[in-house]
Amino acid sequence: MIKVGIVGGTGYTGVELLRLLAVHPGVELTAITSRKEDGLPVADMFPSLRGVVDLAFTSPDKADLTQCDVVFFATPHGVAMAQAPALLAAGVKVIDLAADFRLKDQATFEKWYKIPHTAPELIEEAVYGLPELNRDDIKQARLIANPGCYPTTMQLGFYPLLKAGIIDAGSLIADAKSGVSGAGRKAEIGTLFSESSDNFKAYGVHGHRHTPETAAQLARYTDQKVGLIFTPHLVPMIRGMHATLYARLTKDIDDAALQALFEDAYKDSAFVDVMPFGSHPETRSTRGSNMLRLALHRPEGGNTVVILVVQDNLVKGASGQAVQCMNLMFGFDEATGLKHIALLP
Amino acid sequence: MIKVGIVGGTGYTGVELLRLLAVHPGVELTAITSRKEDGLPVADMFPSLRGVVDLAFTSPDKADLTQCDVVFFATPHGVAMAQAPALLAAGVKVIDLAADFRLKDQATFEKWYKIPHTAPELIEEAVYGLPELNRDDIKQARLIANPGCYPTTMQLGFYPLLKAGIIDAGSLIADAKSGVSGAGRKAEIGTLFSESSDNFKAYGVHGHRHTPETAAQLARYTDQKVGLIFTPHLVPMIRGMHATLYARLTKDIDDAALQALFEDAYKDSAFVDVMPFGSHPETRSTRGSNMLRLALHRPEGGNTVVILVVQDNLVKGASGQAVQCMNLMFGFDEATGLKHIALLP
Amino acid sequence: MIKVGIVGGTGYTGVELLRLLAVHPGVELTAITSRKEDGLPVADMFPSLRGVVDLAFTSPDKADLTQCDVVFFATPHGVAMAQAPALLAAGVKVIDLAADFRLKDQATFEKWYKIPHTAPELIEEAVYGLPELNRDDIKQARLIANPGCYPTTMQLGFYPLLKAGIIDAGSLIADAKSGVSGAGRKAEIGTLFSESSDNFKAYGVHGHRHTPETAAQLARYTDQKVGLIFTPHLVPMIRGMHATLYARLTKDIDDAALQALFEDAYKDSAFVDVMPFGSHPETRSTRGSNMLRLALHRPEGGNTVVILVVQDNLVKGASGQAVQCMNLMFGFDEATGLKHIALLP
Amino acid sequence: MIKVGIVGGTGYTGVELLRLLAVHPGVELTAITSRKEDGLPVADMFPSLRGVVDLAFTSPDKADLTQCDVVFFATPHGVAMAQAPALLAAGVKVIDLAADFRLKDQATFEKWYKIPHTAPELIEEAVYGLPELNRDDIKQARLIANPGCYPTTMQLGFYPLLKAGIIDAGSLIADAKSGVSGAGRKAEIGTLFSESSDNFKAYGVHGHRHTPETAAQLARYTDQKVGLIFTPHLVPMIRGMHATLYARLTKDIDDAALQALFEDAYKDSAFVDVMPFGSHPETRSTRGSNMLRLALHRPEGGNTVVILVVQDNLVKGASGQAVQCMNLMFGFDEATGLKHIALLP
Repeated sequence: MIKVGIVGGTGYTGVELLRLLAVHPGVELTAITSRKEDGLPVADMFPSLRGVVDLAFTSPDKADLTQCDVVFFATPHGVAMAQAPALLAAGVKVIDLAADFRLKDQATFEKWYKIPHTAPELIEEAVYGLPELNRDDIKQARLIANPGCYPTTMQLGFYPLLKAGIIDAGSLIADAKSGVSGAGRKAEIGTLFSESSDNFKAYGVHGHRHTPETAAQLARYTDQKVGLIFTPHLVPMIRGMHATLYARLTKDIDDAALQALFEDAYKDSAFVDVMPFGSHPETRSTRGSNMLRLALHRPEGGNTVVILVVQDNLVKGASGQAVQCMNLMFGFDEATGLKHIALLP
Repeated sequence: MIKVGIVGGTGYTGVELLRLLAVHPGVELTAITSRKEDGLPVADMFPSLRGVVDLAFTSPDKADLTQCDVVFFATPHGVAMAQAPALLAAGVKVIDLAADFRLKDQATFEKWYKIPHTAPELIEEAVYGLPELNRDDIKQARLIANPGCYPTTMQLGFYPLLKAGIIDAGSLIADAKSGVSGAGRKAEIGTLFSESSDNFKAYGVHGHRHTPETAAQLARYTDQKVGLIFTPHLVPMIRGMHATLYARLTKDIDDAALQALFEDAYKDSAFVDVMPFGSHPETRSTRGSNMLRLALHRPEGGNTVVILVVQDNLVKGASGQAVQCMNLMFGFDEATGLKHIALLP
Repeated sequence: MIKVGIVGGTGYTGVELLRLLAVHPGVELTAITSRKEDGLPVADMFPSLRGVVDLAFTSPDKADLTQCDVVFFATPHGVAMAQAPALLAAGVKVIDLAADFRLKDQATFEKWYKIPHTAPELIEEAVYGLPELNRDDIKQARLIANPGCYPTTMQLGFYPLLKAGIIDAGSLIADAKSGVSGAGRKAEIGTLFSESSDNFKAYGVHGHRHTPETAAQLARYTDQKVGLIFTPHLVPMIRGMHATLYARLTKDIDDAALQALFEDAYKDSAFVDVMPFGSHPETRSTRGSNMLRLALHRPEGGNTVVILVVQDNLVKGASGQAVQCMNLMFGFDEATGLKHIALLP
Repeated sequence: MIKVGIVGGTGYTGVELLRLLAVHPGVELTAITSRKEDGLPVADMFPSLRGVVDLAFTSPDKADLTQCDVVFFATPHGVAMAQAPALLAAGVKVIDLAADFRLKDQATFEKWYKIPHTAPELIEEAVYGLPELNRDDIKQARLIANPGCYPTTMQLGFYPLLKAGIIDAGSLIADAKSGVSGAGRKAEIGTLFSESSDNFKAYGVHGHRHTPETAAQLARYTDQKVGLIFTPHLVPMIRGMHATLYARLTKDIDDAALQALFEDAYKDSAFVDVMPFGSHPETRSTRGSNMLRLALHRPEGGNTVVILVVQDNLVKGASGQAVQCMNLMFGFDEATGLKHIALLP
């Protein structure tokens, strides 16, 4: 049994980590911190955990996280970079669900996140926690930069095409749609029920933090210059993400060969479901599960490939992926504790 | 491993049985029937089951259900009564999620369900499948009448008060609210998204089938004549049920003693969570789980007790309860395969 | 044309007043105040008003509201009582959408709202703005205490029965359900989309501010002591309120006579729709309109009457009712500018 | 006062026509037909119309529509083409909300709609009812083919760019999202609340009827060959449509000039709101109103223009647009009866 700590357990990725880890057979939940809720039983804030999680929140000043084998940071950007050095020095592995170590270029990080990076010496070492593309590095890692929900869908969707060198990497379009829980558990007017229910809108169209992260990762798989237009939208649903990806073919290829590219790329990936060509995956088919499902289309047989990708933004797009990384880092089977079937309806 | 069959697997209680049974450690899913969908892989209809359930629907004419140890009927009223006699004769246990065997009075059944009862000889033997109140009988049963969602909340909410003899059994009021999945997976205008979203209404206020069922069961716990007003409402949410129960105290009792009555009644029940006095349980704290949560109130200290009860109508209110009965019937621990934590948010 | 000012226009009752008043033929919108948004065009905050409302928010320090004929307070409790005396002294009529003048008993007000009353000399003069029951007084009023959404449904639902003296006034039960917009446009976690969507719960069951207000008003129509249990619930919909009211008959009366009582009581009320006996009104049938619809039931012919009442909480339950009062105060036809048909679907 | 008939009034575009026409100052509602609901008062089906619309549905066999000045067909494809010839011969104008006369190429119509065209002699005469681009022809028309919701957003979004000749017409992408009411009021499993709530998916990605219609119309404004990828999605909201349009610039142009192109194109159009450059229009800002709002973006200053377009699919995308056409055909001001302000929240 490994000892696990969670820093910042009052948000949605925090409670989702708890839901997954509470029934993980190889894990002992040891500490969960919150400065504001010190002493409050976790189950008083999240009644879904009554009878399952007995921990109370502890102030970070009191919690001794160096006793843990691994600590998850389910915190705003900037927290992990402050605390990771000491934990790593004490032999504790760190999985950051925020952006602190996702970008290899420090200047780009500081431009988009508008905070100075306080642990630049760790940037190089940090491993990008996308198991399907980085499995071996994750197994060896001490420090994981867990990708966010949008970049996960875009990378797993474009990867096989880029790798095969059959699309124009300079004109990628990702029209993506996220459930509201992606905005986190923060008191804000814009995500009130009365503001976001029965409504649909785009946001951040002029430029979004996830574009440079995704473009930089995609560049690893192609010699072309990557050009990516990324348009996020807000969907009136709690969980779920749907990316509609557009790529222009530069080589002749038939539908069966396209499909085979994807099936090959993910044949060893338990959490990527390549659906039959022409399917329309629904976000609810992943609700509460760690599965990402995708399907290919070629509208009217033309030279544009449309890839439809769905996942639960809080699971495969955040906490489930983090647990998947933890499994790899500690020698568990990659799917341990992650076999929840999606809740449908 | 016991062999399990499901008759009528294309509805919501059917797919929910599959979600639960697919990961139940003591069960082998053997057959699932549907006349209309013969040959269709189950996962083609319910993509949440891709990679988990390999079965295809079989026409009931072809399926040999007598090879099963137990058969669940997730069917409209009238189907189980037609097929149960032959299955029981072949040594197969039967759990009916519909109403065929819920009412001990045949005439009352026929009045409310408007069909003749074709297996009246089994009515007496059938055991009402509410484990918290009928555990011992269920263990011995061959034929289970699984209660519906509304009656479960009403019975578990009123039971401790009736048993203690401290309320007026003749003036019970149950104001209950159900998610839309309670109406089933049927093509009907009234439960279209565009009809039931952003809307709230009562229905069947003049009289509802669940009233006589509930009143008859409650009568087992009191010498008084039971009078029950039951008002169902439709909530724009998929899963979840909330019952707001009103009872008038006829004896002096303080809040702590009231609370103790409930804690005592359910101290051995893993799936009833008696929350602290004055709590407001939320349906989402049970979403996807088999937990029923309840809390007591006494508005302005008067002589009316308000009991708030929540559950997931498809789990504790239907398929989860059926699996709970199955566990008891076959000697499994009652909670086997039912430890899913609610999905929140 | 009368000149109208709005204090506190950034909440939901504020924007709803704007929607209604912008097309009212007898009104000139003169000023709308907000300390925080001084200078911001109203249509920048509420794009639904682009091209229709040209006003910008003004800081209350700069706005000269004494030039108005009437000022609406769409503010938190406590603001109107501070500003009303000066406005009234300047000959301006005042309509308060908050609670400052709803309770005739100052001590009760201070107990429930936990603030001292700073204009107690106006309490007696203030007229309770429920046109259907107080039409003549409203016509003469300088200061209106506009009732909230819950009290409106409860009063219009119970009134004909109390007036007729045929129910037990001591055992009234109001099980009421509100859309989330009733909680206002405030940054709070509890009303985030991800918290309140796909969820249902009760709140404030131990005691709620609207109970003493409603009980006091109902007492005007009966000699009996009024006893009222009021249970509010939160529904995952934006607009709409549904009250399910329970009353015990103390006299013999048949269904037709019951129905006639209600039809008589509201025969001159353009905004109360008494539906056929046994109907199930839906909240959406009032979405965006000033109509309140109600229907009577008598479950299984017993001695309990169930009254189902629906309205749009932001219109008949707030801003529409306020405009209805304004119409009466200024000699307009009561329905002027309030003929919007509900948006269905 | 002109006499108006509606054929097929039981769907969503039918009830929306009624909501708009019931308060139109120049219209007398004369007949509304439904074979199935003959004799049923309209307000019994749509209680939002109680007290406002007194008509009952009439069987088409009994209704004498030749007495009308104009007849709207809110029917499935194929009905208008059968009945229009006789009505036109009797001097009645016809507005078809279905697709019968939208495609000028009969073979294309028959390929996509899979029914033979029974009034091919009228195809040429029929005027495409998009007032912003076809105003003068509509004024003279006897027969209007009212565009659907998707084509309206795509045409009004791409038109100014195509007209100006500054984009590559061969690589247009329209990623569009519709509320569920777009699927109509039909009893189908796929649009049940429990299927489409808390869910998001694409559909018809391989090819959709609206693609040839839109491409044909767009071709009128450019000499280039039009290539259009159109991807429709289903959003869990009742009303509202959001199109995210992507076009590649082929000429140098700055943001201000781009913006000016659109402001110019729609300066005389009361129902097209060109928002400030870089805005993010929300569907709810058009809920229940006839406004279409759009805004331009240029992600990271590159050569892709993104146009965000929103409207209410049942108003500007269907019934409101039809009434707008009627206004033009009968000499009313174009905006008569269409000044409803969007319901927000």
